[in-house]
Amino acid sequence: MVAGDGSGSIEWTTVSKEERFRTSVFTVFEQRSRGPEGREGRFSVLEARDWAVVVPLIAKGPESQFLMVRQYRHGSGRPSLEFPGGVIETGEAPEAAALRELAEETGWVPGALHHAGTVYPNPAIQSNRFHVFLAIDPKPSVERNLDEDEVVDALLMPANAVRDQMGEGEMSHALMATALFLADRCARRLGLEAF
Amino acid sequence: MVAGDGSGSIEWTTVSKEERFRTSVFTVFEQRSRGPEGREGRFSVLEARDWAVVVPLIAKGPESQFLMVRQYRHGSGRPSLEFPGGVIETGEAPEAAALRELAEETGWVPGALHHAGTVYPNPAIQSNRFHVFLAIDPKPSVERNLDEDEVVDALLMPANAVRDQMGEGEMSHALMATALFLADRCARRLGLEAF
Repeated sequence: MVAGDGSGSIEWTTVSKEERFRTSVFTVFEQRSRGPEGREGRFSVLEARDWAVVVPLIAKGPESQFLMVRQYRHGSGRPSLEFPGGVIETGEAPEAAALRELAEETGWVPGALHHAGTVYPNPAIQSNRFHVFLAIDPKPSVERNLDEDEVVDALLMPANAVRDQMGEGEMSHALMATALFLADRCARRLGLEAF
Repeated sequence: MVAGDGSGSIEWTTVSKEERFRTSVFTVFEQRSRGPEGREGRFSVLEARDWAVVVPLIAKGPESQFLMVRQYRHGSGRPSLEFPGGVIETGEAPEAAALRELAEETGWVPGALHHAGTVYPNPAIQSNRFHVFLAIDPKPSVERNLDEDEVVDALLMPANAVRDQMGEGEMSHALMATALFLADRCARRLGLEAF
């Protein structure tokens, strides 16, 4: 440790928690919590369903490709080029949600699915988790089935172009950089890609 | 394009936007928007200040290290090992915020600061942006100055251990994987690290 006294890792105790506002996607709670040396604070926390994303890697052929989707995002107010994914339904396993979202948004079904990691999308203010999967060699297999309000294009991108451009222009969704980082590490560990 | 008709990239028009709930960290708006073929939908959007994070890389010496901070996160309800960062103040440039947060949380000041990328932390439901910086060879230089409610430890971690463990255990903050991905690519482009 180069600064601090070790109390940064001490858990705070929730003293009270009240629902304050609810939308169809998340609920806002206000928490009062007690930390080291008895200090108290108020914190706003968003509760939402867990999310799943799937990084579909076509490793066959002369050049690896990712299957991606383009859709308009209402938070940023612009189109976004992303890996397929969405909200995990009640009682649904994360890997089932990943396969369902991939099929609904692209119609493609993979040969194999690997769990690449599970993280908190934003543990400062959200309690939910974000599950990342690597899907190997998907193929067009089923009809797409988009949610109401979903307008999605699916396309193939050279994998190295995505690695080079992720975080820029249309690929500016931070959680897709997270997904790429975890999926690429998973692929390296599986011996599927050497980069 | 392997599925879709190109309308995934068409921008929606905001028909109405109303503030619904406000906290100290974010404000929730309800938007009604019109998309392709005149379809309409209601969307909840969080507005918040932009955030800045800084990845401090000590590249001198036999083994590269990252300077990191450990703090309790109230969304996930557990301690989290992260790169220093925080909220950008009114009128503050993102790089100034990165340097300020680094100094406040660790007391360290870098020799050089590089912009590694700017993304949307979650463009589906948030409008704000997340600015990532790479700080080269920081050194202990000033007194720390933590915010009220901040309990933070600062520590050095071998860079390759962070690359190996990011997304697991205490390093489960998705946006820190984003930051590592962008900062490492920036370091490679600058010829500072070869990995």
